[in-house]
Amino acid sequence: MSRRHTFFAQRALDIAIRSAQKGTGPFGAVVVRNGKIIAEGHNEVTKKNDPTAHAEIEAIRSACSKLDDYQLTDCILYTSSFPCPQCLGAIYWARPKAVYYTNTLAQAANMGFDDRYIYNEFKKVNSKRKYSLQKIALKDESQAFKVWNKKKNKKIY
Amino acid sequence: MSRRHTFFAQRALDIAIRSAQKGTGPFGAVVVRNGKIIAEGHNEVTKKNDPTAHAEIEAIRSACSKLDDYQLTDCILYTSSFPCPQCLGAIYWARPKAVYYTNTLAQAANMGFDDRYIYNEFKKVNSKRKYSLQKIALKDESQAFKVWNKKKNKKIY
Repeated sequence: MSRRHTFFAQRALDIAIRSAQKGTGPFGAVVVRNGKIIAEGHNEVTKKNDPTAHAEIEAIRSACSKLDDYQLTDCILYTSSFPCPQCLGAIYWARPKAVYYTNTLAQAANMGFDDRYIYNEFKKVNSKRKYSLQKIALKDESQAFKVWNKKKNKKIY
Repeated sequence: MSRRHTFFAQRALDIAIRSAQKGTGPFGAVVVRNGKIIAEGHNEVTKKNDPTAHAEIEAIRSACSKLDDYQLTDCILYTSSFPCPQCLGAIYWARPKAVYYTNTLAQAANMGFDDRYIYNEFKKVNSKRKYSLQKIALKDESQAFKVWNKKKNKKIY
């Protein structure tokens, strides 16, 4: 890996170490654009009472806020650990240029953080998952989509 | 389905319809606790410049903020459409009692919202995905986990 990549990955890891020292989760992430860090994040689930406040989500939200954009075009995300499914999903929506990580899912699992459990859940069909979601049928249930598809001058995301 | 479930599902759909009318995404969600709606959310990706601001994430974050908790114990989530991988991941972290949806992934795809693409990406190994994440090895890369595991009096999430 180039020295630049290693530098930013180390920064994400240093943020994770500091977060662990503070008692928030041991995860860190940074967003880089044009060779500069534009946002950082660490796990703040328990501090913010927000189960979605993982390092990657925090960094993505902060970077988008700074860029005033809902896309991370031309940005690179560095994270101290391979993202969980929630955060990998967020990456697909934020569309950065590339993503680098340091700890693998197996390394994290060995240290007591087993995000592989959720990845394995995703491999099952809905009816076999812990969260087996139930459908509630309604009249005109496609109405929201119909309204959206007719709406003019909307921002596509 | 019971009349109560149908009532809350209809509320999530009504929020989705209103969101579509306003030009934000056609998705809505509500969180219910003890038979009462404690939080609502709709897609605000383009409005908030936050790619993670899907209806379910917005409703989960709002409900957790109101409960002052990072878990949705005893809560039920109703969403107008089957959640995308990001939001299903968030559900696994928020741990509500149950989740109900109205539009299936196939119904959403027929209307131009193909979250199945991301689910299919998740089924692939990392090296075959659009976002094929690259590992950057560092010295002492498990340091954040080691610090965390030694830390006393921490909140487990």
